Amino acid sequence: MSDKNESTMWGGRFTEATDTFVERFTASIQFDQRLFHHDINGSIAHAKMLNKAGVLNDEELSAIETGLEEIRQDAINGNIEWSIQLEDVHMNIEARLTDKIGITGKKLHTGRSRNDQVATDIRLYLRDAIDAIAIELRRLQSGLITQAEIYADAIMPGFTHLQTAQPVTFGHHLLAWNEMLERDYSRLMDCRKRMNQSPLGAAALAGTTYPIDRELTASLLGFDKPTENSLDSVSDRDFAIEFNAFASILLMHLSRCSEELILWTSAQFNFIDLPDRFCTGSSIMPQKKNPDVPELVRGKTGRVIGHLTSLLVLMKGQPLAYNKDNQEDKEPLFDTIDTVQDCLKAFADMVPAIQIKGDGMYEAAKRGFSTATDLADYLVRKGVAFRDAHEIVGQSVAYGIDSGKDLSEMTLKELQQFSDIITDDVFDVLTLEGSVAARNHIGGTAPQQVRAAAARARQLIAK
Amino acid sequence: MSDKNESTMWGGRFTEATDTFVERFTASIQFDQRLFHHDINGSIAHAKMLNKAGVLNDEELSAIETGLEEIRQDAINGNIEWSIQLEDVHMNIEARLTDKIGITGKKLHTGRSRNDQVATDIRLYLRDAIDAIAIELRRLQSGLITQAEIYADAIMPGFTHLQTAQPVTFGHHLLAWNEMLERDYSRLMDCRKRMNQSPLGAAALAGTTYPIDRELTASLLGFDKPTENSLDSVSDRDFAIEFNAFASILLMHLSRCSEELILWTSAQFNFIDLPDRFCTGSSIMPQKKNPDVPELVRGKTGRVIGHLTSLLVLMKGQPLAYNKDNQEDKEPLFDTIDTVQDCLKAFADMVPAIQIKGDGMYEAAKRGFSTATDLADYLVRKGVAFRDAHEIVGQSVAYGIDSGKDLSEMTLKELQQFSDIITDDVFDVLTLEGSVAARNHIGGTAPQQVRAAAARARQLIAK
Amino acid sequence: MSDKNESTMWGGRFTEATDTFVERFTASIQFDQRLFHHDINGSIAHAKMLNKAGVLNDEELSAIETGLEEIRQDAINGNIEWSIQLEDVHMNIEARLTDKIGITGKKLHTGRSRNDQVATDIRLYLRDAIDAIAIELRRLQSGLITQAEIYADAIMPGFTHLQTAQPVTFGHHLLAWNEMLERDYSRLMDCRKRMNQSPLGAAALAGTTYPIDRELTASLLGFDKPTENSLDSVSDRDFAIEFNAFASILLMHLSRCSEELILWTSAQFNFIDLPDRFCTGSSIMPQKKNPDVPELVRGKTGRVIGHLTSLLVLMKGQPLAYNKDNQEDKEPLFDTIDTVQDCLKAFADMVPAIQIKGDGMYEAAKRGFSTATDLADYLVRKGVAFRDAHEIVGQSVAYGIDSGKDLSEMTLKELQQFSDIITDDVFDVLTLEGSVAARNHIGGTAPQQVRAAAARARQLIAK
Amino acid sequence: MSDKNESTMWGGRFTEATDTFVERFTASIQFDQRLFHHDINGSIAHAKMLNKAGVLNDEELSAIETGLEEIRQDAINGNIEWSIQLEDVHMNIEARLTDKIGITGKKLHTGRSRNDQVATDIRLYLRDAIDAIAIELRRLQSGLITQAEIYADAIMPGFTHLQTAQPVTFGHHLLAWNEMLERDYSRLMDCRKRMNQSPLGAAALAGTTYPIDRELTASLLGFDKPTENSLDSVSDRDFAIEFNAFASILLMHLSRCSEELILWTSAQFNFIDLPDRFCTGSSIMPQKKNPDVPELVRGKTGRVIGHLTSLLVLMKGQPLAYNKDNQEDKEPLFDTIDTVQDCLKAFADMVPAIQIKGDGMYEAAKRGFSTATDLADYLVRKGVAFRDAHEIVGQSVAYGIDSGKDLSEMTLKELQQFSDIITDDVFDVLTLEGSVAARNHIGGTAPQQVRAAAARARQLIAK
Repeated sequence: MSDKNESTMWGGRFTEATDTFVERFTASIQFDQRLFHHDINGSIAHAKMLNKAGVLNDEELSAIETGLEEIRQDAINGNIEWSIQLEDVHMNIEARLTDKIGITGKKLHTGRSRNDQVATDIRLYLRDAIDAIAIELRRLQSGLITQAEIYADAIMPGFTHLQTAQPVTFGHHLLAWNEMLERDYSRLMDCRKRMNQSPLGAAALAGTTYPIDRELTASLLGFDKPTENSLDSVSDRDFAIEFNAFASILLMHLSRCSEELILWTSAQFNFIDLPDRFCTGSSIMPQKKNPDVPELVRGKTGRVIGHLTSLLVLMKGQPLAYNKDNQEDKEPLFDTIDTVQDCLKAFADMVPAIQIKGDGMYEAAKRGFSTATDLADYLVRKGVAFRDAHEIVGQSVAYGIDSGKDLSEMTLKELQQFSDIITDDVFDVLTLEGSVAARNHIGGTAPQQVRAAAARARQLIAK
Repeated sequence: MSDKNESTMWGGRFTEATDTFVERFTASIQFDQRLFHHDINGSIAHAKMLNKAGVLNDEELSAIETGLEEIRQDAINGNIEWSIQLEDVHMNIEARLTDKIGITGKKLHTGRSRNDQVATDIRLYLRDAIDAIAIELRRLQSGLITQAEIYADAIMPGFTHLQTAQPVTFGHHLLAWNEMLERDYSRLMDCRKRMNQSPLGAAALAGTTYPIDRELTASLLGFDKPTENSLDSVSDRDFAIEFNAFASILLMHLSRCSEELILWTSAQFNFIDLPDRFCTGSSIMPQKKNPDVPELVRGKTGRVIGHLTSLLVLMKGQPLAYNKDNQEDKEPLFDTIDTVQDCLKAFADMVPAIQIKGDGMYEAAKRGFSTATDLADYLVRKGVAFRDAHEIVGQSVAYGIDSGKDLSEMTLKELQQFSDIITDDVFDVLTLEGSVAARNHIGGTAPQQVRAAAARARQLIAK
Repeated sequence: MSDKNESTMWGGRFTEATDTFVERFTASIQFDQRLFHHDINGSIAHAKMLNKAGVLNDEELSAIETGLEEIRQDAINGNIEWSIQLEDVHMNIEARLTDKIGITGKKLHTGRSRNDQVATDIRLYLRDAIDAIAIELRRLQSGLITQAEIYADAIMPGFTHLQTAQPVTFGHHLLAWNEMLERDYSRLMDCRKRMNQSPLGAAALAGTTYPIDRELTASLLGFDKPTENSLDSVSDRDFAIEFNAFASILLMHLSRCSEELILWTSAQFNFIDLPDRFCTGSSIMPQKKNPDVPELVRGKTGRVIGHLTSLLVLMKGQPLAYNKDNQEDKEPLFDTIDTVQDCLKAFADMVPAIQIKGDGMYEAAKRGFSTATDLADYLVRKGVAFRDAHEIVGQSVAYGIDSGKDLSEMTLKELQQFSDIITDDVFDVLTLEGSVAARNHIGGTAPQQVRAAAARARQLIAK
Repeated sequence: MSDKNESTMWGGRFTEATDTFVERFTASIQFDQRLFHHDINGSIAHAKMLNKAGVLNDEELSAIETGLEEIRQDAINGNIEWSIQLEDVHMNIEARLTDKIGITGKKLHTGRSRNDQVATDIRLYLRDAIDAIAIELRRLQSGLITQAEIYADAIMPGFTHLQTAQPVTFGHHLLAWNEMLERDYSRLMDCRKRMNQSPLGAAALAGTTYPIDRELTASLLGFDKPTENSLDSVSDRDFAIEFNAFASILLMHLSRCSEELILWTSAQFNFIDLPDRFCTGSSIMPQKKNPDVPELVRGKTGRVIGHLTSLLVLMKGQPLAYNKDNQEDKEPLFDTIDTVQDCLKAFADMVPAIQIKGDGMYEAAKRGFSTATDLADYLVRKGVAFRDAHEIVGQSVAYGIDSGKDLSEMTLKELQQFSDIITDDVFDVLTLEGSVAARNHIGGTAPQQVRAAAARARQLIAK
C-alpha cells in the first residue's frame, strides 16, 4: 500500500491510500459505466457554457469536445478498460480526457462537482429510458385495442371471486387491461415532466463561485429549466423513486394480466392458446408446454416492488445534502428500467399472438348461472323490488344446483315455482347474447360499447 | 346456528348460515363505517339518476333522500349501532333505510352493486382527504418560506457526508425542504386528477341492464367523467396505491427533515431550539427534553412505506374482476391518510416555532475548512487548472489539520508554502460571508438568491 | 394552555405545557392499553424484587400488589378511562396506583424506566401471543394430516406452471402444505427462544444505581435469563421484526394454500367444495357463492408483509439507545398478531370441512398426458437414454394433441410409430394408479408413502 | 426461425422454435452460472446413487465423474462459453457432458428433474455462503469485544432521543453492538439448520419411478436428511426468504452502527477517528474526508430489505408446485449474499481501527446534566419517593439551564433550594466516574460489568 492516494482526484489531504477492498467496495464504475453517453453529453454542455462564461477559451472547448467524442467512440466500441481506482464513470472519463488532451482536461470540472454531475447524468439517462418505455407501452396498448376490436363479440364468463359472475366479451376484458396501462402511461408522463429539470450548477451542494449560466446548460440538455435549490438538487432522488412507483404499479398490472393468461392456458380453463414460441418445455415431462413468459413477468413484479422498497429505505432519514448512501440508487433504478423494458416487450409481442378458443369460452359462460342477475333485473322491471327479486333468483339457483339445470334450461313451470310473475319472455333475457347486449352504456360490456371504447382508446394513444 | 342466512342480503341460495367467526372475519363495518358520509352522497346521486331514468318515481326518490339524510344525522350523532351481521357500511345503511321507509329502500340498489358502490365511496373519501392534505401541505410550505426569508443571511455549515462542506444559509437549507414538498404537492395533484373519475354504473363487473346515466351521477358527485371500463372500475385500486406512493415519498422527505431537527437540537450540534410544547420528558431522567415530534414523524415513515408495500402485495397476481382481497385496501389507506394529516399538522405547527441559535451555527461554519473550495476557485481564477488547485488546497488542509489552524487563520506565508500564486486578496474569499455571497446564481446559496427563490416559491403556492 | 405540565410525570424542567395536538400525537395509550395485563405482571415482579433488595418494605409491597390487582380488575371490567394526558399504559397505571395507595405508588418506578418497562411488557405480551399461535398452528396441522390420511389415495392432477404435470394424490398435496407449516412452527419456536430474555433492569439505558436483582425478576416473569447489555435492551426491537418475518412467511404460505382453494372451488377446476358457512354471497348476483375466507387470507398477506417492511424501515439508521420512533413498533406488531391468529383460526376451522369432488379430480388427472414421464421412464428401463426417451415421448404427445387422444387411449401400433421398443406392457405404466404407486420412496406420492409421511408428521406435532 | 427447437432438451412436442427474445428473457444462465460448482457436486452424488441403484454401471459412473470434473476445471478456468440457448447452468453442463462422453451423458438426468436439481444446487450454494458469513460475523464480533475491553472505562455520553441521557462507557456501547450481532449469528445458525435438507429425488414434483435412494444422496451432499414431501421440495423457497430476513435484520443493525460512526466522526460530535484508508475525498472540496464505508453500509440496508420484499412478493399467491416465477429467487439471493459478505468484511476490518478521542467524549458526557438521574436516586435513597425526587431534580435542571451551570457546578446552597435533604455527599454521585461505577449489575455500564460481559461474549463466540 502506498502512503498516498496517487491515482485519485481528491488525495491531497490524505496520508494513507485507500484500502484495496474499500476501493472496490466504494467504487461505482462496475455499474455506472452505462451512463457514459449521458455523462459525455452533460460534460459537453457544461464545457460550452464555461466557454460562453469565459472560463474556457475556444481552443480549450474544441479540445474537450473532440476528446470526449473520441472517448464516446472508445466506449461504444468497448475499448475502455474502466478502472476501479478511478471510482466512477465521471473520474474515468475525466482521467482519460486529461490523458488525451493534457492540462485542459483538468479544467473541465471547473464550477461543478460530481454531486451535480451524477444527478444530471441519471436524469438524462432516465429520461431516455422513459421515452423508450413510453413507445413500448403504447405498442402493447395498440395490440390490446386491436385484439379487443377483433373479439368485441366473443362471449366469455366474467368472474368475481374467480366464480362465474356474468357474461362479458373478451374484447371488453382486454380493454380493462388497456385502462390499467393507460393510467400507467399517464403516470409515466407525469414522472417525466417532474424530473426534467437540470441540477447542473448545484455543484457540491451550495452552487459555485464561477459565473455559470444554468439556464444555458439546462436548455442545451433538453431540460425544461434549472432546479431551484442547490442543496435539494444534489440530495434529491425523488425521480428514481417516482419512476419505481410507476414501474411497481405497471408490473402489478402485468402480474394480474399474467395470472389470467396462466389460468386461461390451463387445461381447466382452456380459453386461449399461446404460440409455442412464447412457451418452454420440461426437462423431464415430455408433454409440457409451459406459459413461461407470463409466469416470469408475474415473478418480476417482486423484483420491481423490491427495488421501490429499497430506494425508499435508502433515502429514509438521510440528512442533507449528498451522502455516499445515494450511490445505491443506481442499481435498483437500472434493473427496474431493464425489467420494465423486457416485460413490456414480452407482452407487446405476445398479446397480438393470443388465439382464443371461442367455443370453450362460450360454453363456460353458459354454465354457472351467469344470467342470474338478468333474471333479477327482469323481475324488477316487472315491479318486484330489487332485494326481493334477488331472493327469488337465489332460490331458483338453489333449485338449479340440486337439479343440475342452468336457469335457461328450466321450464317456465319450474321458474314459476319461485315467482308467478315470470312469463314466456323470460327466456330472451336468459341468453348470453341478450345479457351482454343489454349492458349498453358507457363502460358496459355490450359489443357496441366495446367497439366505441376501443375507438376512443385508439384515438387517445394516437395523440 | 340457523339453517339460513336470514339477515344477509344475499342468502337465497345458501343452505347454511355463515359461521359466526367467519362473519366477523369477513366483515368490514369495523373500519368502513367512516365512509358513511360518502356512501350516502353516492346513494343520493344514484337515486336521483334512477329517478331521471324512470326507475324511481318522485315520491320514492324523496323518501330515499329523506331517509338517507336521517341516517346521516344518526351517524354523525353516533346513534347507529353498526352491525357486523350486515357486513359493511353499504348493507348497514341500506337495511336501516328499508327499516325507515319500507320496500322503497329495497329499490335503491337497482342498477348498481356493492362493487361499484365501494369503489365510488373510497374515491369520494380519498378526494376529500387529498383536498384537506393539500391545504395542510401548503400551510407547511408557507411556514418554511417565511422562515427562509427571515434567515436568508443566517450562515450555517452545509454538510455532505455529515462532514462540513461549504457554508450555506439557514434560509437556503429550509428552501431545500420546500422544494421536496413542492414536488410532493405536484404529485398529490396528479393523483387527484387521475382518480377523479366515477366508477358508479360498473355494477358488479359488466355494467347493468337498467337505462342508467353514468355521466349524470359522475357530474352530481363532482367527478370529471365516468370511468371507461366496468371490469377495470371494480377491480382497480391504483388510486390507493398512487396516493400511498405520494405519501411514502412525502414521509421520506419529512424523515429527512426530522433527522436534521433531531441532529440540530442535540447538544453536539446545538443549532436550533424547539419550544417545550413540541417536546416531552423522561420518566426517569429529570433533565431530558426530547424532540419527540420529529422522532415520531421519522418513525411513521416506516408505517406509510409499509402500507405501500401492503397494497402492492395485495393486488399482485389477482385475476379480474373484484375479489374479496380488495377489502384489505381500506385500513392501510385510511391509516396513511390519518398519518399524513397528523405529520403535516405537526410540522406545519412546529416549523414557524423553530428558533435558531445563530452564533453556534456561525461558529460551526467557521470550523472544518468550509471555504477550501473557495480557495481552490481562487487559484483557478488565477490560472491554475481545477484539478491542480484541488491538490494544492488538499495539502493546505493537511497542514491545517496538523497545525490546528483553519485556512482563514493561516498567514499568507503559510498559505504560500503550497502555491506562490496566492496573494493578500485571498482572505476575502476565505470569509464565510464572501463564500456564501459568491454563489450567486439561480439555486445558489447567496442571500439575494435565497430571497428571490423564496419570492418565487411564495408565488407558486399562492396559485 | 397552562404554563406547566401539571399532569405529566416528567414536567419539572418544562416551562410550557405540551401542545394539545402534540399530546395526542405522541401518546400511545390508544393502542398500548392492551398491554395492561403484562404491565401489571411486570410491575409486581419488579416490586417483589425491590422488596427483597430492601427498597420497598413488606407493607409497601403489599399495598402495591393489592393496588395493581385492583387496577387489573378495573381494566378487565372496562372501568378505566385511559387518559391521553398520561401518555401511555405505564403512566396511566402508575397514576391510578398513586391515587389508590398514595405516596407508596410513587416508589414503584424506583430503579426502572419506561424504556425497560415497555421492552419487558411487549416481550411478555408477544410470548403469550406466540404460545396461543403455536396451539392454533398445531390444530391446523392436525386437520391437514387427518385429511391427508383420508385422501391418501385420491388421485388429482399435479401441476407445474399450472399445467398438468403428473398425477399425485390429494393427501400428498395436503402434506406439502403441512411441511410449509412445520417450518413455520419451527421458526416460531426459534423466535420464542431468542426473545425470552428479560430487559427489566436496563432502566433508561445504562442500568440503575439501585441494588436490583435482574435474575430474580427474570425468573419471576418466566424469562430464561436477563439480557446482557442495557443499551441494547432498551433499543432492541429484533423480536418484533423476527416475529413479523415468521408471520410474513406463514401468511405467504397461507396465500398459496388460499390460491389453490380459490382455484379448486372455481367452476373450471371444480375439485372441492367449501361449506356455505365459509362463503358469502353477492348483493347483486343471486347465484354467487364466493370463497371469501381464502380470498381474505390471501389479501391479508399484504398486510403482514407491509408490517415487516414497516418495522425494518422504522429501525433503519436509528442511533442508540431508545428513540421515540420505537413507539411505532406496537401497532404493526399487534395487528400482525391479530391477523395471524384470525387467519390460522379460519384455516384450522375450514380445512377439516373441505369436501373433495373425487371424480372430477380423477378425470382431470387423466387428461393432459399426465403419464408421459412414466412412458419415458418405461423406455429408459428398456435401455433408451433418458434424453432420447424424452424426445420420443414428446413426439407421441404432439401426435396425441393432433389426434385428440391421450397416451393411454392410443393403440399399441400408434405408440410403436415412435419407438418399436414399446410393447404391450406399456399400458400398465400409463394408468394413473400405476403412475402414482410407482413413486414409492420417501417424499414420493405413492399412497403408502403418503400414509407413512402422515404418521411421521402426526408424531412430530404430538411432541 | 427454424420450425423446431433443435437445441433444447424438451423440444419434442413443439412445432415452433422459441422466439429469440423469449429465449434470452427466460434464460437464467446469465446469473445461475455461479452455481456450477454445486451443480456438479449434486450431479456426482446423483450419479453415485444411480450406480448403487443399478441404473448406471461402473463405467458409466466413471465417465460421468471424469467428464464433470473436467467441466468443473473448464468453468474455473473460464473456458466455458455459457449458452443462452441452453437456458441454465444445468442444461449447459449436461449438454457439455454429452459432448464429452457421448450417450452416457444423456443418462445422468434419469430419476431427477431440473426442479429438484436447482433446489439442491441453491441450498448447497447458500449453505457454503452461510458458513463463510458466519466466520466473518464472528471476526467482527471478536473485534468489537477486543475494543470493548480496551475501552471498558472510557466515558462517553449515553443518548436517548439523541439527547444526553446518562454517562456510559465506550466499551459498554460497543458490546451493545455485539449483542445485536450475537442474535444475528443465532438466527443464521437456525436458518442453516432448517435449510440443510436434501430435495434431491423430488424430481419434477411427485418423485420418480426409479429405485432412488434419497438418504444416500442426502448424506453424500452433507445434508441432515431428505425433505419430506416432493411437491413442497420443488416449490419451497423459504430458505432464501429466511436468509434474507436474517440479512435484513443484520443490515438494519449495521445501519444503526453506521449512523453512529457517521455521527461520531462529524465535527460536531468528534468522538472518534476513522483511518484514511476507510474514507474517501471529494472531487471539488479539497478538505473533505468522508466516512464512505459506514455511509455505504447504511445505504445497502435498503438493498437487502428490498430483496426480502421482492422474495415475499415473488412467492405470494403461487399455486403448487414449481412455477417459472421461482427462477426470480436467485438474483436477490445472490446479491444479498454478496452484500452481506462485503458489509461484514468492511466492518470487521474497520472496527479494530476505530480510534477514540477520549477527551472529547468525556467532556461531552459532562455537559447535558447527564447525572441528573443519579441525583434523583440519591434523593430516593434519602427517603424521597421517586416521582417526587424526579420533580425536584427537574427544577434543579431548569435552574441550571437558566444559570448556565451543570449540576456538579452548583453550590450546595444552590442545590438545597430544591430540597433541604441534599447534603455535602451529593457531589460524589454527581461525578461521571461515580455515576458509571454505580450501575453495577449484569448488563449495567460499570466498567467491571463491561469487562465481565466482554469475557462472557468472548467465550460464547469461541464455541
